[in-house]
Amino acid sequence: MEDLAARIQARIAQIEPLDSRSMQEAAAYQDTLLKPSGSLGELEAIAVRIAGITGSLHNRADRKVHFLFGSDHGVYDEGVSGSPQYFTRVLMEFYAKGEGCGINVLCNRAGVDLRLVDMGVKELGPNPNIDSRFRLMPEGTENFARGVPAMPRSVAEKAIEAGFVLAGEAKEAGFQIVGTGEVGMGNTTPAAACIMAALKIDAPDLAVGRGGGLTDEAFETKKRVVVEALKTHRPDPSDPIDILSKVGGLDIAGMMGVFLGAAFHRLPVVIDGVISVAAALLAVAAAPRSKDFMIPSHLSQEPGYALAMRSLELTPLLNLGMRLGEGSGCPLAMGIVDDALALMNSMNTFGGVSLDSEYRKALKI
Amino acid sequence: MEDLAARIQARIAQIEPLDSRSMQEAAAYQDTLLKPSGSLGELEAIAVRIAGITGSLHNRADRKVHFLFGSDHGVYDEGVSGSPQYFTRVLMEFYAKGEGCGINVLCNRAGVDLRLVDMGVKELGPNPNIDSRFRLMPEGTENFARGVPAMPRSVAEKAIEAGFVLAGEAKEAGFQIVGTGEVGMGNTTPAAACIMAALKIDAPDLAVGRGGGLTDEAFETKKRVVVEALKTHRPDPSDPIDILSKVGGLDIAGMMGVFLGAAFHRLPVVIDGVISVAAALLAVAAAPRSKDFMIPSHLSQEPGYALAMRSLELTPLLNLGMRLGEGSGCPLAMGIVDDALALMNSMNTFGGVSLDSEYRKALKI
Repeated sequence: MEDLAARIQARIAQIEPLDSRSMQEAAAYQDTLLKPSGSLGELEAIAVRIAGITGSLHNRADRKVHFLFGSDHGVYDEGVSGSPQYFTRVLMEFYAKGEGCGINVLCNRAGVDLRLVDMGVKELGPNPNIDSRFRLMPEGTENFARGVPAMPRSVAEKAIEAGFVLAGEAKEAGFQIVGTGEVGMGNTTPAAACIMAALKIDAPDLAVGRGGGLTDEAFETKKRVVVEALKTHRPDPSDPIDILSKVGGLDIAGMMGVFLGAAFHRLPVVIDGVISVAAALLAVAAAPRSKDFMIPSHLSQEPGYALAMRSLELTPLLNLGMRLGEGSGCPLAMGIVDDALALMNSMNTFGGVSLDSEYRKALKI
Repeated sequence: MEDLAARIQARIAQIEPLDSRSMQEAAAYQDTLLKPSGSLGELEAIAVRIAGITGSLHNRADRKVHFLFGSDHGVYDEGVSGSPQYFTRVLMEFYAKGEGCGINVLCNRAGVDLRLVDMGVKELGPNPNIDSRFRLMPEGTENFARGVPAMPRSVAEKAIEAGFVLAGEAKEAGFQIVGTGEVGMGNTTPAAACIMAALKIDAPDLAVGRGGGLTDEAFETKKRVVVEALKTHRPDPSDPIDILSKVGGLDIAGMMGVFLGAAFHRLPVVIDGVISVAAALLAVAAAPRSKDFMIPSHLSQEPGYALAMRSLELTPLLNLGMRLGEGSGCPLAMGIVDDALALMNSMNTFGGVSLDSEYRKALKI
């Protein structure tokens, strides 16, 4: 797959920085609105950054899409999850009904198109509402705790390519913002391993959490599994695809591809919880400029999340104590992005209303 | 005004606790939904608490109202604000146009009715979109830095009563959730003074911030003014109406009344920033049960906000670095309340879908 690796590298090299002129214009425009300068905080910063992404002063995020990647994980067999593995399949089937699960309710409320992507969910059959084009490992990844890599490097590249394809299709279809989520029993284990490898962290307590819920014993197992896998595989911290193939997951790989593809296609992309942020971290390691296209959503309770966010220099917008997965923070954050853009688009400027000169002077405009 | 004081006290005494049976039912119902128990964090807690407020398992917050209190402050004359005082009037007039300001945009987007209440804005004339029934001090409060109380105790009581009336009218009109906001140049000064008095804090650095923006010199003045006013007036920490009348503001008093009235009429009520939380703190001092009806919104940058929130044992849902005022955090938080209730109302229960017994056993239901 020499060609695919080269194609990914070529597109990464083509990611352009934010348009600094548009951002300067947007920031200057913000200062003409009817409010003290900077008083809308992150709502101003988001609108300015999206101007830098699109190159336009005024933007909308009416058309929203959320990619939810399902995949199974070989490392599940080590006892690192509190749920039966077939929940991955059952939940994908539930999401596909379009209602009833958390992500369905939140996407429906926020006007977000939910796209379900099967990257390798055991026994998941054909379903008209699930995209199975990228079902790369029908039995899920290998168990990286047993000395084998989670997936061959060539599969990791194909999974990243899947994310590129999806981001491109989203752009083509007119979507203006993209969310990233996942389902996969045991997937906080590869997420923690990827974060530790990328940030060169040895102490598992800094990055490994209890995921959806774990006994004390299983939690100790999970930490041991991550530490030993990193010792065995020694992924190269400077090579995110090496990390991904050795101790990652197909969901993480797909999301990494969406982050890279969103940057390539100049779309803002929302980070959800710890698995999503592991993918974001690997994307930034591969393409530092991709960071500028990422919007955080909620403060995940997994310890690795905070570490990764610090490294990305981002602060979550929401603090709701959520640990559902599914990318459930994304539709909530997309609503805030909508608010940020609406403020930029709909607030009056001082120029647009009748104000005396003293007023203007007091505001130093 | 003996009668009014007695009436306020009588209604405070009638505030009922949350309905614990409904909350237990709601919490048990949450555990039957298609998600790991507790994984929706605050979104679950909010839905459970609102069940305790209304006494019903399922609730809606479609009908939302936001009370924005305008008032001027005598202490403005000490140089504690970075804006001309007539901005209070001008901004009220702008809000009344129904569009163009931050609070207009956010209320319109979230489907929130905006109610403007003039408690005492200098030179604010009649306006069909501004409620002037409670224009208690047409020149604003007295300058409490000059040895006089901000307002007579009888006026503080009338202002609280105004909040009770507004909350009652909201209930009558079918609103299901209430927001609290304000505009008034210099009003972070009385807010800081009220928080320090209520929490018995001496060090101004813990509670006094730069509000909408201040020079270093004006910031020092502001701290000195607050410290000296507390020394001069010695408000009784156990008597919130004493605090309010000596070093408070009409906006704070009106919002305190809304917090009490919302609890009396069993409506959830959203806290905005530092001025709103000062009112919440005084309301809880007067009626501890009123705390259970309060929903936080965003993390204000004013230091007094964090102190007050700690005392109220609440954590803000949003972290957006906002310092606009107007109650701008409330429509954002009301959207999250909507999401929380929609999840409770629309997610499938395990009972409602076909699941095998192993599935149920694994989830311990």
